[in-house]
Amino acid sequence: MENPDFKRIDGQALRQFCVRALMACGCSQKQADVTADLLVSADERGVHSHGVNRLEIYTQDLQLGAADGSAEPEIVSETAAAACVNGKNAMGAYVGTFCMDLAIQKAREQGIGFVVARGSNHYGMAGFWAMKAQKEGMIGMSMTNSSPCMVPTGASRAAIGTNPIACAAPAHEDGMVLDMATTTVPLGKIEFYHRQGKPIASGWGVDNTGTVTTDSEKILFGGGLCPLGGEAATGGYKGYGLAMMVDTLCGVLSGAAFGPTIKGWRAGRTSANVGQMFMAINPDKFCPGFEDRMHEFNSLMRGLPLAQGATEVLVPGDPEKRKTDEAREKGVPLHTNVVEALNKIADSLQVERLQL
Amino acid sequence: MENPDFKRIDGQALRQFCVRALMACGCSQKQADVTADLLVSADERGVHSHGVNRLEIYTQDLQLGAADGSAEPEIVSETAAAACVNGKNAMGAYVGTFCMDLAIQKAREQGIGFVVARGSNHYGMAGFWAMKAQKEGMIGMSMTNSSPCMVPTGASRAAIGTNPIACAAPAHEDGMVLDMATTTVPLGKIEFYHRQGKPIASGWGVDNTGTVTTDSEKILFGGGLCPLGGEAATGGYKGYGLAMMVDTLCGVLSGAAFGPTIKGWRAGRTSANVGQMFMAINPDKFCPGFEDRMHEFNSLMRGLPLAQGATEVLVPGDPEKRKTDEAREKGVPLHTNVVEALNKIADSLQVERLQL
Repeated sequence: MENPDFKRIDGQALRQFCVRALMACGCSQKQADVTADLLVSADERGVHSHGVNRLEIYTQDLQLGAADGSAEPEIVSETAAAACVNGKNAMGAYVGTFCMDLAIQKAREQGIGFVVARGSNHYGMAGFWAMKAQKEGMIGMSMTNSSPCMVPTGASRAAIGTNPIACAAPAHEDGMVLDMATTTVPLGKIEFYHRQGKPIASGWGVDNTGTVTTDSEKILFGGGLCPLGGEAATGGYKGYGLAMMVDTLCGVLSGAAFGPTIKGWRAGRTSANVGQMFMAINPDKFCPGFEDRMHEFNSLMRGLPLAQGATEVLVPGDPEKRKTDEAREKGVPLHTNVVEALNKIADSLQVERLQL
Repeated sequence: MENPDFKRIDGQALRQFCVRALMACGCSQKQADVTADLLVSADERGVHSHGVNRLEIYTQDLQLGAADGSAEPEIVSETAAAACVNGKNAMGAYVGTFCMDLAIQKAREQGIGFVVARGSNHYGMAGFWAMKAQKEGMIGMSMTNSSPCMVPTGASRAAIGTNPIACAAPAHEDGMVLDMATTTVPLGKIEFYHRQGKPIASGWGVDNTGTVTTDSEKILFGGGLCPLGGEAATGGYKGYGLAMMVDTLCGVLSGAAFGPTIKGWRAGRTSANVGQMFMAINPDKFCPGFEDRMHEFNSLMRGLPLAQGATEVLVPGDPEKRKTDEAREKGVPLHTNVVEALNKIADSLQVERLQL
């Protein structure tokens, strides 16, 4: 690791630390285990915005009673291929595990399993859930709604979340993992540029009049994020439309909160009632040889003639796969600020600090 | 109709004309009926790129034997909730009708119906298929792969289609209909600007080195379309990722052609072997009151404070709904060039011209 701001941490030690901290806040062992796994996987993939730096919010939610670390999700309605689940305000990682396991089980027989959840919480990196199905040789898809931060086309107020879409497909050792917010960039990226005083690209966010701006200050204070596509002329209404699609499947269908009715971050003890969608598709029930064809598709894309200045054509998930391989060999990279924050959490919860 | 370049045509007369022309090329009555309905619906919605101006290509495909106007699609494999269909090279509209009807039927009992097709042809406006489920009180989704015209991020050659995503949700009289290509704009839009010699926005297309350009000439000759998001800095890799997701579900899963293996337009008598996905979700099997909540969601979005210079906040499908209402009242608007082209088709096929 060349970057001196990062330390490599043993993945197992990091998981155990997360479990200790979560259980000290009243999380059951089962909920703590899957939550730790979710967070560490994100750091392994280099998606640090959804990694252990979220532990602070998670432990606060548990301490305030905004999330219930001992709840058990319940199936509200069910068919052979579909289900609606009430997460009962358990940790998002636990609701996600319950739902995707159910979708996979249904897909084994029916070719498709489609499960939606209400009463859930932040479920981390959407790709994690899609990859759960991928590991079973299935196509996995997952989406979640989230706190309002995207300003719809034509509006001047944030009213819908970053509402990510994830899709993972198996291809022997060579999968495809799409995991994307429906905004141009995540809020964290604008905060990062703001702290450094660096200018940002046009099409990332708008000010409080709904006008696209390159002033990160105006985006963060009173403005909001652009949908994928940016302004209307470059297709911004499509990103907004995708966010509405995600919220229709996650929030409206399940009976969860949706759009501007979702609470903001750090809203105290109010439960989030986030909605999520989990889909598993079993290729064996459709047409034999799926993984061979998927590998061919990936290879065709990677083998395309390069654009001027480009060094490679990637398939979604390629960069994260490389980072995961490296993290599993050398340890999980964590910013020193994050390590410090974890130690503060340890001290305040009176649990053993992270083993470096 | 203020625009003198457009004429209003009676919808029923236009449908009957399409049926006459298609049947003169060997299309069965059943295939001709659904194809006519698909094309006229697109013109009603103002999506003229997918309207009756496609009739020329459709009739040519039938005459060359590239599509089979008398074939019957077959179910290759099936469960209670899913199916894989071989379209047998029938017209795309006929394969689409077969597949979405099957998905709706499965969703009635199972909550979800998920059907993929191979051996299909161009199936017009993706939203048409999603709206078929919407009319039954269900959420409809549909996607299709298509001829390569998008240049993947980092590449310098078109290798994947515009691969649209459609999602329609019912809300009493107030539905949401998302129907979007995963490119920033359709090819037709760049051709339109090119003919007029007008400059285009950055982020629509690239030249033959894969570099974003505002020169429509370079995009049309040797270049290609940008994925939604444009350049990498503004999230172009997300639009490319969405296009791969669509092709994974449509092409790779069904056993159809995918990515750069799909033939280009007007490729003579080669059959297209296009792949498509059709999904119906029956909200009654999940959580009661879906349409009330969906209407509330739409209303919340439309009621947002406006951006500077904006006159309204829309929900996906609002503009097309207005155009449809107008077309049903006053007639379907057709460009005079299109009317002329239809009359040429009539003469060459020796069928009665369009009734004006």
